[in-house]
Amino acid sequence: MKRYRLCFLGFGNVGRALARLLVAKSQELRERYEIEWEITGVATRRMGWRASGEAIDVANTDQIPSKNGFHEWLATARPDVLFETTSLNPETGQPAIDYLKASLQSGAHTITANKAPIVYAYDELNEISKANGKSFLFEATVLDSAPVFSLFRETLPGVKVRGFSGVFNSTTNVILESMEAGRTFAEGVKMAQELGVAETDPTHDVEGWDSIMKICAIARVILRTPLLPSDVRREGIRGLDPDTVQAARAEGRPFKLLSRATVNMDGSVSASVRPEQIGTGDPFSSVRGTSLAIHFELDTIPGLTVVSHRPNLQSTAYGLLADFINATRYQER
Amino acid sequence: MKRYRLCFLGFGNVGRALARLLVAKSQELRERYEIEWEITGVATRRMGWRASGEAIDVANTDQIPSKNGFHEWLATARPDVLFETTSLNPETGQPAIDYLKASLQSGAHTITANKAPIVYAYDELNEISKANGKSFLFEATVLDSAPVFSLFRETLPGVKVRGFSGVFNSTTNVILESMEAGRTFAEGVKMAQELGVAETDPTHDVEGWDSIMKICAIARVILRTPLLPSDVRREGIRGLDPDTVQAARAEGRPFKLLSRATVNMDGSVSASVRPEQIGTGDPFSSVRGTSLAIHFELDTIPGLTVVSHRPNLQSTAYGLLADFINATRYQER
Repeated sequence: MKRYRLCFLGFGNVGRALARLLVAKSQELRERYEIEWEITGVATRRMGWRASGEAIDVANTDQIPSKNGFHEWLATARPDVLFETTSLNPETGQPAIDYLKASLQSGAHTITANKAPIVYAYDELNEISKANGKSFLFEATVLDSAPVFSLFRETLPGVKVRGFSGVFNSTTNVILESMEAGRTFAEGVKMAQELGVAETDPTHDVEGWDSIMKICAIARVILRTPLLPSDVRREGIRGLDPDTVQAARAEGRPFKLLSRATVNMDGSVSASVRPEQIGTGDPFSSVRGTSLAIHFELDTIPGLTVVSHRPNLQSTAYGLLADFINATRYQER
Repeated sequence: MKRYRLCFLGFGNVGRALARLLVAKSQELRERYEIEWEITGVATRRMGWRASGEAIDVANTDQIPSKNGFHEWLATARPDVLFETTSLNPETGQPAIDYLKASLQSGAHTITANKAPIVYAYDELNEISKANGKSFLFEATVLDSAPVFSLFRETLPGVKVRGFSGVFNSTTNVILESMEAGRTFAEGVKMAQELGVAETDPTHDVEGWDSIMKICAIARVILRTPLLPSDVRREGIRGLDPDTVQAARAEGRPFKLLSRATVNMDGSVSASVRPEQIGTGDPFSSVRGTSLAIHFELDTIPGLTVVSHRPNLQSTAYGLLADFINATRYQER
């Protein structure tokens, strides 16, 4: 049995869902994985840098001593595992990248739900992770909880990936289905916001940037190819009017915002995000509502599709928990 | 770099495809996994027990010394890894179970494409595997190459499985689609045979026994519940006439032979195999032709579907190769 000191950098919906899931799963973690845990640090823009040398109660953050900035917080909380769920900076990945580096250098397994550090600093973070013998994991970044990176790390050794495609963005799914049902674009945005999948400003989702970040993260890790957001051809869903969307659905070939990446003969990767029509029998024909999916073309399997149906906050939190459990198992190897 | 002695017990289509795949992937195995290999034994009913203390050429089996039965064969070939792909005995799993036991006891990682030993002797084989510090793996048994068992062993730690469903049988898929296209049941069987997915006697597939074996194997390993073929409610596809099948497809809700297992409140498992209609948006709506799929309901992910599209012989062989690579990685831990 080992007792892990956990820190939460970012403590919004996902962080809080993870804290609840850790409580709900604590008996199983003890009995099956010999994991005990306590939280020693939590930080958000609103509450500041809260940390202690001992276990803290995240339900009463006012009672936790406040520290002067990230480094003092880290030195006080001394995490064995840090969960980073701060909001995304899609242009640079900062300051999350610096936080993740410092966390790994301090000797913590470091787990993020943040795509940008993968896109902009994966190789460096991976090297620091190896040099310090600590895991750097990020399973929650693409399909929430459904395995994508661990699939290739563990279950599909020795395959060559020829390309992948995906439905990576819930907001656009909800908007398009809403338009199919006769509502306006704006009403669709509102529905996605009510479902908790869209931000106040949905531009990042609607214009395809969220999908592009996911393509680049997967290309970097699984295809081992540096691909930057500016390398991906991009077309959002704003050009689709309700009539076109409804006609496509009536025809049985509805629109989705589809992500695609293909490995070219010379090893380079071509990628795009754009609305495409999905026919019956298509790998994504079962993808409805907030569901997400990825499809791989492999040298040894003609097509392999993973669909995560209606993932919720607990699903994303589970992605982080799975990384935590796997980090402790890798350590044992 | 380690050089592994490999033995093939059974050397039909799948075994031969694996031998070819090992050759095709040999550089990658060396460079990425530090695996070298040589074959020291091969056995089939027709060629007998062929083995040598040194590397053999499976293209010239007549040149390989013949041994008197399994035990002499095993003692001569001294495998580090044994691949078992003999034909299925769905009633007892024998003699494969005894072969697998002896293989593990001899100190070989033991890999099978055979469902029956999982159904009838998983716990015992797993114990022998642990006692001998050698892997017992069987990823090719359910969806050919797509990860099912390794998904839970590696990528989804700490989840509770509430139930699963699946399209586990290609022969019935092909027969039903053939009937949808206006052909008879017998013509569908012939087509499945031509595609290489159906046996000369398709009863095992058509009556649902193949699917039942897969349900029982998954229940045993992933739900940790002993479930025997006789515990599963069974209805094959013979009761469906072309008119019914065509009408269902016209309605957009085609028939598939569907496998289902549900974990009940008291922990017991209820399971069935029967033709069911699949609507659009159903997890299996993209499953066509020889494709196979599994869908899990998990406590932390509402639905997770894995679809293997049009798996071929090489895909099944890859399932065995993935087990081989993973066995050598587990050993390192």
